[in-house]
Amino acid sequence: MTVTQDERRNGVDTATLFATLDAVKGQHEIAKFQFRASNNWVNGVHSRSKFAGFYGAGGEMLHKAAHIAEADHPSVLCGEDAAPTPVEYLLHALAACLTAGIANIAAARKVNLTEVESTVEGNIDLLGILGLDKGVRNGYQQIKVSFKLKGDDPEKLRSVVAQSAARSAVYDVVTNGVPVAIEVEAG
Amino acid sequence: MTVTQDERRNGVDTATLFATLDAVKGQHEIAKFQFRASNNWVNGVHSRSKFAGFYGAGGEMLHKAAHIAEADHPSVLCGEDAAPTPVEYLLHALAACLTAGIANIAAARKVNLTEVESTVEGNIDLLGILGLDKGVRNGYQQIKVSFKLKGDDPEKLRSVVAQSAARSAVYDVVTNGVPVAIEVEAG
Repeated sequence: MTVTQDERRNGVDTATLFATLDAVKGQHEIAKFQFRASNNWVNGVHSRSKFAGFYGAGGEMLHKAAHIAEADHPSVLCGEDAAPTPVEYLLHALAACLTAGIANIAAARKVNLTEVESTVEGNIDLLGILGLDKGVRNGYQQIKVSFKLKGDDPEKLRSVVAQSAARSAVYDVVTNGVPVAIEVEAG
Repeated sequence: MTVTQDERRNGVDTATLFATLDAVKGQHEIAKFQFRASNNWVNGVHSRSKFAGFYGAGGEMLHKAAHIAEADHPSVLCGEDAAPTPVEYLLHALAACLTAGIANIAAARKVNLTEVESTVEGNIDLLGILGLDKGVRNGYQQIKVSFKLKGDDPEKLRSVVAQSAARSAVYDVVTNGVPVAIEVEAG
């Protein structure tokens, strides 16, 4: 198959994208995925996660190579600043999910992108996690994502961003929450 | 000041931890923080975030060095697998936040840790984000965190994990959600 300009747009292989969609339409079971992170405490507030494999498309899958991400706190929060904080990774996850959606949706709609930048800001009052004010929540109080897009018609670009938010896994979890079960084996 | 064993436990400088707490008690304003990520689209579903600075402790702060995190999709999800997926970073953020809390809380309670491992699993049905079933949410349907801790008395370790969840910024956001505002500049 010759890959024409229509089949690869914004670096997205739209032929494969639509083929994936068709495959899932024909077999809903392959849409069930489980993602995983294995985290190990390093020292202090520094830890390291490994992403080796996941379940999806009907079976166990491996990443091409296991990915690693570390986390730490800056010195003002009693860390050594060896890596981003956990709360910064949350902002990254949100920006990256929305941006991936923008690229895919734009490609599917034959909208060309030349630039997608975003700044994500999360406001948090540490009186919550420090246990100093019961009226203050532990997490972010609000998050703002500011996108700057260049490419085709601005109205089309805005519509692509709106659709990305309407179909983003991370945006859904961050705005609506999800039940989290914690199990502990100690000894 | 001589750092004794009591002042540094689990790699946590407890003297500084308590001094930070006292400083915030005396001046609540310094607890207001804003964390930020600046994300740039690379190509396809691949993007890169930079964490340069943040606001906190009453002023603008810089990380020792700017941190970087990339994100991509595996090939089965039409990416090139150059980095973890956004939804995997969400699991990392959760594990790292809970683990940092465990280290701090254990140190504050004079509980020694020798090992903290966790596996985080998030189940997601892609029928949601693919727009193939309106009854299926876009994000994770549930997340399970399995901790394995070694150190002092198992009951104390379990209690430390429970307190970490009760005071975790990421756990709060992931379980309860937070309002997200999206602004777009296109053209």
